[in-house]
Amino acid sequence: MKTGIFISIEGPDGAGKTSVLQELLPRLQAAAKVTVMSTREPGGIPISEKIRQIILDPGNSEMDKRTEALLYAAARRQHLVQKILPALADGQLVVCDRFVDSSLAYQGAGRRIGIEAVAEINAFAIEDKYPDLTLYLDVDSDTGLERIRKGRKSHELDRLDVESPEFHQRVRHAYLQILADNPDRIIRVDARENIADVVETCYSIIKEKYPDLFN
Amino acid sequence: MKTGIFISIEGPDGAGKTSVLQELLPRLQAAAKVTVMSTREPGGIPISEKIRQIILDPGNSEMDKRTEALLYAAARRQHLVQKILPALADGQLVVCDRFVDSSLAYQGAGRRIGIEAVAEINAFAIEDKYPDLTLYLDVDSDTGLERIRKGRKSHELDRLDVESPEFHQRVRHAYLQILADNPDRIIRVDARENIADVVETCYSIIKEKYPDLFN
Repeated sequence: MKTGIFISIEGPDGAGKTSVLQELLPRLQAAAKVTVMSTREPGGIPISEKIRQIILDPGNSEMDKRTEALLYAAARRQHLVQKILPALADGQLVVCDRFVDSSLAYQGAGRRIGIEAVAEINAFAIEDKYPDLTLYLDVDSDTGLERIRKGRKSHELDRLDVESPEFHQRVRHAYLQILADNPDRIIRVDARENIADVVETCYSIIKEKYPDLFN
Repeated sequence: MKTGIFISIEGPDGAGKTSVLQELLPRLQAAAKVTVMSTREPGGIPISEKIRQIILDPGNSEMDKRTEALLYAAARRQHLVQKILPALADGQLVVCDRFVDSSLAYQGAGRRIGIEAVAEINAFAIEDKYPDLTLYLDVDSDTGLERIRKGRKSHELDRLDVESPEFHQRVRHAYLQILADNPDRIIRVDARENIADVVETCYSIIKEKYPDLFN
């Protein structure tokens, strides 16, 4: 039975995840011997998309933060079962833009539900199918917030972006805690560097850790 | 600060919950000094209704059983926060037709996810707001299934009703296990008796346990 490799990319808002992935993915696709599948929740999975619609509907302003965390976990579960696991069973290299660690950082610490509590419902959702490798793009809150403000127009700021600087600090500190707790799975990448350098670092880490995937 | 009383009614399909509640609720309403609120999830709460629609949509046939359990927990959370907790804060007597124990029995045991695992995500959902009293209407699987088949036309059988006799046995055994584990919260009522007797038993238990609620 083939088993692929499951990589997640994490980081606070403003770490540059989107820009990094835009350059990293084509490089991986060009160099890898296996199919590289890029995804992010809800990932086109109909059930996960419907769940996400409930979360993001501005009409649902009365949504409790624990309801929201359970819905994120539900959408994650279905995306994992219908998209990630089949790709891994097919031997593919799966690169997922955000996964469980985002929920721990944003819901657990950002929204103050508690990292442990959010970790429990996510453990239920993924049944211990953690990524083989997580690249954590680290940026301090000030730099992250500045990048967000520069890069986007005000009407593009989504709900999480407009949270306070303290919210962003809690998220970043949570990421650093999760990193400390999972040294075998998560590798920190300094995301204050320019994009090209960050991409190069990410690419080298993956290539070094999984040499068999590459020509 | 006023605090109401929170009662849940549980039991396997065919235990007669619906018929019992139809007679029990008017008696409680007539005799209680406080407002009696009857509810069952999703209970008219818009967010919970939308979640329930995803669960019950026959088009979502690919739904994983853990996704389903997380969605039930999410709908429960919102119904609790928006409907049950405000009524309790108002000093009301809340009677809820099914609550956490149904998930433990049906998802945990019936669908074989595991009672402990389902208990964990529900503990997250309700934050330890268990009912003050749970009346468990107990009926053996054979009697329960026979009642369902007699009482309903085939096109009315919902998804859970058409599960196998083994499914119903697992559900009932799970309820007995939950009862054994929570002797202070759950009281077993023999639901093989005729409806009038079951109603009388339930009414007496509530009146005896909460005499201050009644004239």
